[in-house]
Amino acid sequence: MPHYQYFNGQIYPIDIPLFKATDLGLLRGYGIFDYFRTHNGVPFRWDDYWQRFENSARLLQLELPINKQEATTILADLHRKSGEAEVAYRFLLTGGYATDSVTVLSPNLLMRTEAISADNNAARTKGIKVLPYDYVRDLPEIKSTHYIHMILMAEEMKKHQAADLLYHKNGAVSELTRSNIFIIKEDTLITPGQHVLHGITRRVLMELAAPHLDVQVRPVSLEELLQADEVFTTSSTKFVMPVVQVGDQLIGKGMLGKHTTYLQQLFHQLTAGWGK
Amino acid sequence: MPHYQYFNGQIYPIDIPLFKATDLGLLRGYGIFDYFRTHNGVPFRWDDYWQRFENSARLLQLELPINKQEATTILADLHRKSGEAEVAYRFLLTGGYATDSVTVLSPNLLMRTEAISADNNAARTKGIKVLPYDYVRDLPEIKSTHYIHMILMAEEMKKHQAADLLYHKNGAVSELTRSNIFIIKEDTLITPGQHVLHGITRRVLMELAAPHLDVQVRPVSLEELLQADEVFTTSSTKFVMPVVQVGDQLIGKGMLGKHTTYLQQLFHQLTAGWGK
Repeated sequence: MPHYQYFNGQIYPIDIPLFKATDLGLLRGYGIFDYFRTHNGVPFRWDDYWQRFENSARLLQLELPINKQEATTILADLHRKSGEAEVAYRFLLTGGYATDSVTVLSPNLLMRTEAISADNNAARTKGIKVLPYDYVRDLPEIKSTHYIHMILMAEEMKKHQAADLLYHKNGAVSELTRSNIFIIKEDTLITPGQHVLHGITRRVLMELAAPHLDVQVRPVSLEELLQADEVFTTSSTKFVMPVVQVGDQLIGKGMLGKHTTYLQQLFHQLTAGWGK
Repeated sequence: MPHYQYFNGQIYPIDIPLFKATDLGLLRGYGIFDYFRTHNGVPFRWDDYWQRFENSARLLQLELPINKQEATTILADLHRKSGEAEVAYRFLLTGGYATDSVTVLSPNLLMRTEAISADNNAARTKGIKVLPYDYVRDLPEIKSTHYIHMILMAEEMKKHQAADLLYHKNGAVSELTRSNIFIIKEDTLITPGQHVLHGITRRVLMELAAPHLDVQVRPVSLEELLQADEVFTTSSTKFVMPVVQVGDQLIGKGMLGKHTTYLQQLFHQLTAGWGK
């Protein structure tokens, strides 16, 4: 599985050092990224991911050195060189090298393929436990590289056999560390619209659910989430993942619920037929 | 001026790429740094800087791969190799390489010398203008690499001819983007003790001021700061820098004040005699 990486116009083997120490992503956390994958060998919702990447770059005032057409060509090149049927793509755009450690001159752009992470199908049947965590992401609409809390809490999660953190602040829930959150009460599907990253899988899920459920985008309190019938989280790697426990408290019966099951099926149908 | 960099046990030329793309400092902003300098060729307050670096590492649960004695030897080596009389040191410790983009295995440690930044002596006489900015740093006691807001606001600062941002949240001021803040009212020197990085120059300044002024560490409101007789900021590069304007409002007469002048003299005496 020889994956490769594109960096500022050239292709390199996957494992060699590319970044100098004066990179503002390293020195100042000034960087954005994105991550998505193929289904049936075709990048899933590429238009949406590119648009979000462009949007994050614009919000950080970073000029993208390539356009969408060039990016599309590079994606295909990297995929072909990998020899893999399915790949994950990771993009990283930083503030570039700054000898004064402050001033953005020319951003550094990295694009690479990686192995698809092992699909946790068992968890999608059983559901996951999350820990409530009093926090809201800084500049949440930007897919920045600021993930200190997620890594800082890794041991604590392991200790509690929790798979993730549920961010909440001033009573309102926002998201998990790397995925969006939905709650279901009767026939209503609700997801917070503020202080969240606008996930592509979240958008897909809302499109899929719209014909079947009343979809609401509005603030959700932690209390309301705990009283929901079903809760699930969405991301490009988790798909539609039931959340059956928050801290010590079960959601509903603590099992995969009927609406979540149905939405999982709809999402599976979409990806199984993707590109066909 | 051939500066060099130490990276995980070896010395490299200053300008070559050292970091692979899977570094958690790059991917997840999981990193700490420190920055200090020599005076008269001797690292200024090295004991304090090392202690703070150790403390930041511990708070991020990162194991330092070297001890203080080893670090001291590397500092001296890098200094000698540079051939420079005075150097600045930059340390960077990240979560290291993570193929899963989440799990810390073995941190990456970089230490390098850099040219001393040009001393802005004129600004220390004239004073600087800062912009009030509604923000408080995340995990402020950790000298992490999360500086997005500082870079994001660079254009805005330039537009207003401001040298820095003054962070305030819920009415309380905390710090500038990379330096601590002090206010003086009559014979009292006050600096916030919460939501701040515990600067080494801040500590030195309090030691120097203690025999002459009533030194208080307590919350400071933005209103109180604006009504102060004198305001200044401290850092390893700024020393004791008067802040004479906040947004459109002058502090006092908008000029370097008498207490600040005296503290500048005390600080200058200390550094001028350092190591002698």
